[in-house]
Amino acid sequence: MTTVALDLLGGDGAPGVVADAVALLFQAPQDSDPRLTLVGPEALTRDLLVERGIDPSLVAVAPAGRAVAMDEDPLSVLRAHDDVTVSVAARLVSRRLADAWVSVGHTGAAVAAAALELGRLPGMSRPALAVVVPSLAGPVILLDAGAAPEATPDLLRQFALVGHAYARTLGVADPGIGLLTIGGEAGKGDRLRRSAHELFLEVLPSRGYRYVGSVEGHDVALGRSARVIVTDAFTGNVLLKGLEGAVTWAAQRMGEAYGDPGPAWALASATATSDFAGGMLLGIDGVTVIGHGAGSAEEICSCIRLAARAADMRLPDVASQALREGGLDA
Amino acid sequence: MTTVALDLLGGDGAPGVVADAVALLFQAPQDSDPRLTLVGPEALTRDLLVERGIDPSLVAVAPAGRAVAMDEDPLSVLRAHDDVTVSVAARLVSRRLADAWVSVGHTGAAVAAAALELGRLPGMSRPALAVVVPSLAGPVILLDAGAAPEATPDLLRQFALVGHAYARTLGVADPGIGLLTIGGEAGKGDRLRRSAHELFLEVLPSRGYRYVGSVEGHDVALGRSARVIVTDAFTGNVLLKGLEGAVTWAAQRMGEAYGDPGPAWALASATATSDFAGGMLLGIDGVTVIGHGAGSAEEICSCIRLAARAADMRLPDVASQALREGGLDA
Repeated sequence: MTTVALDLLGGDGAPGVVADAVALLFQAPQDSDPRLTLVGPEALTRDLLVERGIDPSLVAVAPAGRAVAMDEDPLSVLRAHDDVTVSVAARLVSRRLADAWVSVGHTGAAVAAAALELGRLPGMSRPALAVVVPSLAGPVILLDAGAAPEATPDLLRQFALVGHAYARTLGVADPGIGLLTIGGEAGKGDRLRRSAHELFLEVLPSRGYRYVGSVEGHDVALGRSARVIVTDAFTGNVLLKGLEGAVTWAAQRMGEAYGDPGPAWALASATATSDFAGGMLLGIDGVTVIGHGAGSAEEICSCIRLAARAADMRLPDVASQALREGGLDA
Repeated sequence: MTTVALDLLGGDGAPGVVADAVALLFQAPQDSDPRLTLVGPEALTRDLLVERGIDPSLVAVAPAGRAVAMDEDPLSVLRAHDDVTVSVAARLVSRRLADAWVSVGHTGAAVAAAALELGRLPGMSRPALAVVVPSLAGPVILLDAGAAPEATPDLLRQFALVGHAYARTLGVADPGIGLLTIGGEAGKGDRLRRSAHELFLEVLPSRGYRYVGSVEGHDVALGRSARVIVTDAFTGNVLLKGLEGAVTWAAQRMGEAYGDPGPAWALASATATSDFAGGMLLGIDGVTVIGHGAGSAEEICSCIRLAARAADMRLPDVASQALREGGLDA
């Protein structure tokens, strides 16, 4: 059975909302639900479980003392302290005591803990956060959604390979790879995109990947050609949050247009709690899911289930193989 | 009365869809509609009008022979030919034969023609394309949506000033200015954003502008704090197209959720044909509106009306004053 380690102290509403997520999993279990190991201060964790009517003997606890605050430099904190929740959770995976881990806390801290405790896959310079957008055509993988600070053409190529691997584990057959840019009119975007386009043309088709070329912002929600859309962390994060804002906008306005807000908000909520809820950190030797800091208990549940499925699909092995097949593990 | 010059040859469906837009304006006129001057080959223009049952004597024609094709370098074409529609249309404004001009063709060509024929405002290094997003809180000005190829902190400051002027002409009282970035976690974004943030803090509040600080992608559709959101052309264009894709996504999915697609698509269509249809080129000494290449006749009508209103509000003068007040006209 799959075990997921959960950072109890990460997130805007932590630890309460994380404990609420655990309670939700117990109240409405699904067959494929994983075992949980909660990572946080032991007494606090037990108290939170009891308050929610959960038998503490049913949930393992891995003691960890502190989180990384939003205004702290994650690397300094992780190096100075051994008992930070994100480090302990990632370490459980590296020691094979858990199969995956989840945090909805400080993104930079989770990325750093994953890199330090689990290590990068051979051929991967920096991990990327990949989000599953439920486009009109099915799942579209958008990456990087906010992990790697500065992109290069070679880094975008790594993203293409691990994003392709992720799309395949989600059941997308022969996913097309698209490079996010602003279209032919403007000379196909900036220098980074022009160089990446040349590199992609040179290395992807010859190794059997279907590179569909440049795509634009609307293609992420429409999914018309590419099912893996590659960009830098800044653009990806702005676009992803833009899509979230647009769905909220649409729920409000559509509810008004129909004179009945119920179905519109139900759709927005179902979208927020779909696989869209969690960013999969790709390029790390261990399944790592990073959710929204402001995520609800339902969204945290989705992150836990997404992490368990990725562990069951052995996503890091699939990604590692993709990097090898793409000629990047040397 | 206001006169708008209209590029007949620009756009994916040109010249037919542009002539359709003219017919729409004649079929359903509004009190504030401008006079039109069509810019295109004379005989072709007359034929298109007659085909649509429009008396050609009611529409002025300014003869121009050719457009800039999507795969051509706009500057080379504009320098080699005197009769390109975008140049002729912009020239009508510079010679005070029209008050504003509209093109839905090649964005780069329209930007170049505007700069060459009308000139930049003092203090403006490069013009920016500003789009009115109908956020939940009212109009939000997002700029640059795709005009200036590489941004600097000083250029973003110019965008803030002219964007603020545009928001005021749209009736937004004391619009807050936000810098689009990816949030505190990641060190407030990349180098460009960190430098721009320092500059904005230094120069905006002391001159009476309300700088609300960093905003994120969702703030564009929600409009919670900033009503002027400043970014580079690459990010702005990706985000804008992302929002368009999300609205199409929402119309499809919400229509399904309610079991009645009508109201959802009506809302999507009303949004596409709102002021959102046209990008206002700010920082140019003459009103220039650039619409979607794939825009419908209804969207082109919206661009024409947006251009007429901006001319009536003397937007270039207001923007010029903002640059002066911001200390940038030296």
